[in-house]
Amino acid sequence: MEVGQGCTDEISYLPWWSSLSLALNKFKAKVVGLAKKVKKVGKDDPRRVVHSFKVGFALSLVSLFYYISALFAGFRTSAIWAVLTVVVVMEYTVGGTLSKGLNRTFATLLAAALGVGAHQIAILAGEKGEPFLLGLFVFLLAAAATFSRFIPEIKARYDYGVTIFILTFSLVAVSSNRTVDAFELLQLAHQRISTIVIGVAICLLTSVFICPVWAGEDLHKLVAANLEKLASFLEGLGEVYFGDKVGGERMESKCFPQAYKSVLNSKSNEESLANLARWEPGHGHFGFRHPWKQYLKVGALSRQCAYSMEALMSYITTNERTQTPADLELRKMISSTCKEMSIECGKALKELAASIGTMTTPGVCRHNIAIAAATTTLKASLSEEGIPSMILETAITASLLSQVVQCVPQIVASVEELARLAQFRDCETLHKATVKPLTEGGSPGVVITVME
Amino acid sequence: MEVGQGCTDEISYLPWWSSLSLALNKFKAKVVGLAKKVKKVGKDDPRRVVHSFKVGFALSLVSLFYYISALFAGFRTSAIWAVLTVVVVMEYTVGGTLSKGLNRTFATLLAAALGVGAHQIAILAGEKGEPFLLGLFVFLLAAAATFSRFIPEIKARYDYGVTIFILTFSLVAVSSNRTVDAFELLQLAHQRISTIVIGVAICLLTSVFICPVWAGEDLHKLVAANLEKLASFLEGLGEVYFGDKVGGERMESKCFPQAYKSVLNSKSNEESLANLARWEPGHGHFGFRHPWKQYLKVGALSRQCAYSMEALMSYITTNERTQTPADLELRKMISSTCKEMSIECGKALKELAASIGTMTTPGVCRHNIAIAAATTTLKASLSEEGIPSMILETAITASLLSQVVQCVPQIVASVEELARLAQFRDCETLHKATVKPLTEGGSPGVVITVME
Repeated sequence: MEVGQGCTDEISYLPWWSSLSLALNKFKAKVVGLAKKVKKVGKDDPRRVVHSFKVGFALSLVSLFYYISALFAGFRTSAIWAVLTVVVVMEYTVGGTLSKGLNRTFATLLAAALGVGAHQIAILAGEKGEPFLLGLFVFLLAAAATFSRFIPEIKARYDYGVTIFILTFSLVAVSSNRTVDAFELLQLAHQRISTIVIGVAICLLTSVFICPVWAGEDLHKLVAANLEKLASFLEGLGEVYFGDKVGGERMESKCFPQAYKSVLNSKSNEESLANLARWEPGHGHFGFRHPWKQYLKVGALSRQCAYSMEALMSYITTNERTQTPADLELRKMISSTCKEMSIECGKALKELAASIGTMTTPGVCRHNIAIAAATTTLKASLSEEGIPSMILETAITASLLSQVVQCVPQIVASVEELARLAQFRDCETLHKATVKPLTEGGSPGVVITVME
Repeated sequence: MEVGQGCTDEISYLPWWSSLSLALNKFKAKVVGLAKKVKKVGKDDPRRVVHSFKVGFALSLVSLFYYISALFAGFRTSAIWAVLTVVVVMEYTVGGTLSKGLNRTFATLLAAALGVGAHQIAILAGEKGEPFLLGLFVFLLAAAATFSRFIPEIKARYDYGVTIFILTFSLVAVSSNRTVDAFELLQLAHQRISTIVIGVAICLLTSVFICPVWAGEDLHKLVAANLEKLASFLEGLGEVYFGDKVGGERMESKCFPQAYKSVLNSKSNEESLANLARWEPGHGHFGFRHPWKQYLKVGALSRQCAYSMEALMSYITTNERTQTPADLELRKMISSTCKEMSIECGKALKELAASIGTMTTPGVCRHNIAIAAATTTLKASLSEEGIPSMILETAITASLLSQVVQCVPQIVASVEELARLAQFRDCETLHKATVKPLTEGGSPGVVITVME
């Protein structure tokens, strides 16, 4: 939309064949980029490819059912609901499919029963009152059900069921005033529900028996992998930062494992997996009542640890920039203790990850002892340096506060950028004017640009 | 399922009327709890109540359309799709409704065209080859479309459209082999699409014109509110922790603003709002091309700041437990500087939040100057205390590492709890045996219980 961008201007001065080949190259690069992305998505988790074929298979199966039912002319139009069910219910994980399938089935049953009931009551109101009463019922039930979706517990487990409940109730209540024959209505309900059950059954069989993806297993592996990531950060820190070759090189230049950063934002993923895992039947080493909630606790503590790592890492990277050679002396002194601490911690976490992986009771007591010993040594060696621990603690608090404070200018800059991009009004012209008084009368946008 | 819980045992020894009244009380408490929760959900955001009534209204409106269309017998069975569309498309935010509505409309159009095309090709294969060819088409398209949902960009914006695409294509391709008449097929397609468009139009009109909830506005307010939370933490820290009444009281016992904790996990919420906001037309102060991405950048930096706060807070709470009176002396010395720093930072952040709220260019230069001055003073006063800054930095790194290390025992404990709950195998009997050699031959489960 906007001109004035250097790149667009340049193109317009080129002959047309050049700009054509440029556009073609751009297109080619986009296609290659997309192909690479698609390949990466498949390579990252080959189960995704399998899942795609599973969906295709389930749909073909339900189409077959549709053909056959058409031959016997039993279900005819209702058979469409089986196809619809397969498309909507089929999810990546078994838990997802099961949760959606059960939600769909039971919500349909409940809503159909209520819809028929509402219809019977509405009949009592006479021919004229009936549509109004039905409309009122639909209005009230839809409003109540929609509101219930805002309750977190219902949102987490029954969100889809509530949607289907509203849908089925509206359909039954509204359409039933034409098929007043109770027998016909029951037959229709029976057909609808059996096609839905058939659709759900096809989905479940496909997702459980063909290369199943269990949400519980994924959660189990995710929690273990997150511990592993924390461990490799600590081991890397021990080896590289506190290692033998302590030098003036920058942290960033080294291949330092920063995988722990993905742990920081793992909450929503873990919670949705735990929600789905609760629906799953026992499988492999996981019973039906496997303590999935405990995984969330381990996950929360891992995140807490990752926050501390983030603070440590940001402190290290900030200070490496202003590092003096003299600074390295003390680091060398305590580096062996720090190295031991972080490597032992890394080992302990790795062992925990392995113990979750193999589902064996962890035996990390010896690591705990080593860590405690190293911590004591560290405190002692710091006091030897002539810094009383009480002064040190206050100094650390102050430094951590500085760390928080250092975030503020960055936030300021990003909000200023936002103000520029979103063209916020400029109400402080006087303040700005002190910087460049000549443009006092100019447009605010220009003033900001000049200031940058 | 398990007995052995004290509470259940107790009840079984009581006479039946007591246990009945106990059960009744429990039920009553649950109902009261639910009622309180429902009230809280509505009170937290009254727009939820409005949204619920909006859904009810839209559904009543579409039912009315259904009645009228039945009178004129124009759409008849297709009218059901209008009801279905309203239930599925109506979302809390305008962006959500618009994204689903557009996805549904265009996916239906594209899939219907492709479905008819596939059907024409399949006819060429003769009567016997037709169902097989159609089945193959469904299989391939469903697999390809399902796979495309794993590509993050498509997942974020077109997930619902892909589902509808698969659904419509399957329905058209499968059912078209019965309605071979091209004219009839076109009429059916026309009816289907116009009912969907009517459904989408009802949803859009309701969500835009009756108390609209804009995702963009919510994102705007969320980012400002998060800055506000960070600000109140800093101000509270300045007032309470570094305030005049520096005493031995614990941090936890005071009403200390810990709202910043919710900023830690704001990522997924912000991202989904930004995704929806991109669909929304210009509204209020927000243009169509409002820089929503910049909000995500501000949000990411706010989270970074919250991580540092978390590190500071966990350091403070850990150390307050082991605080000695002597420790308070130095704190008093630097507390005025720290107080100034945190209060000024808090003010700067509050001003940023206000500037976003009022959409005016922020003018926080003076705060920046004050913060820089306070930081310099702090460094100077720390060096006055006889701690050279180079030694301090190394000591801080070591302390931050200790902070990370202190997370490990908690993680160990939580994994041990998991091992107990999930009944992990015990492969280290020898190791455990040193604790209680007598149970060497006993079941592993017992050994663990004894150890606790």
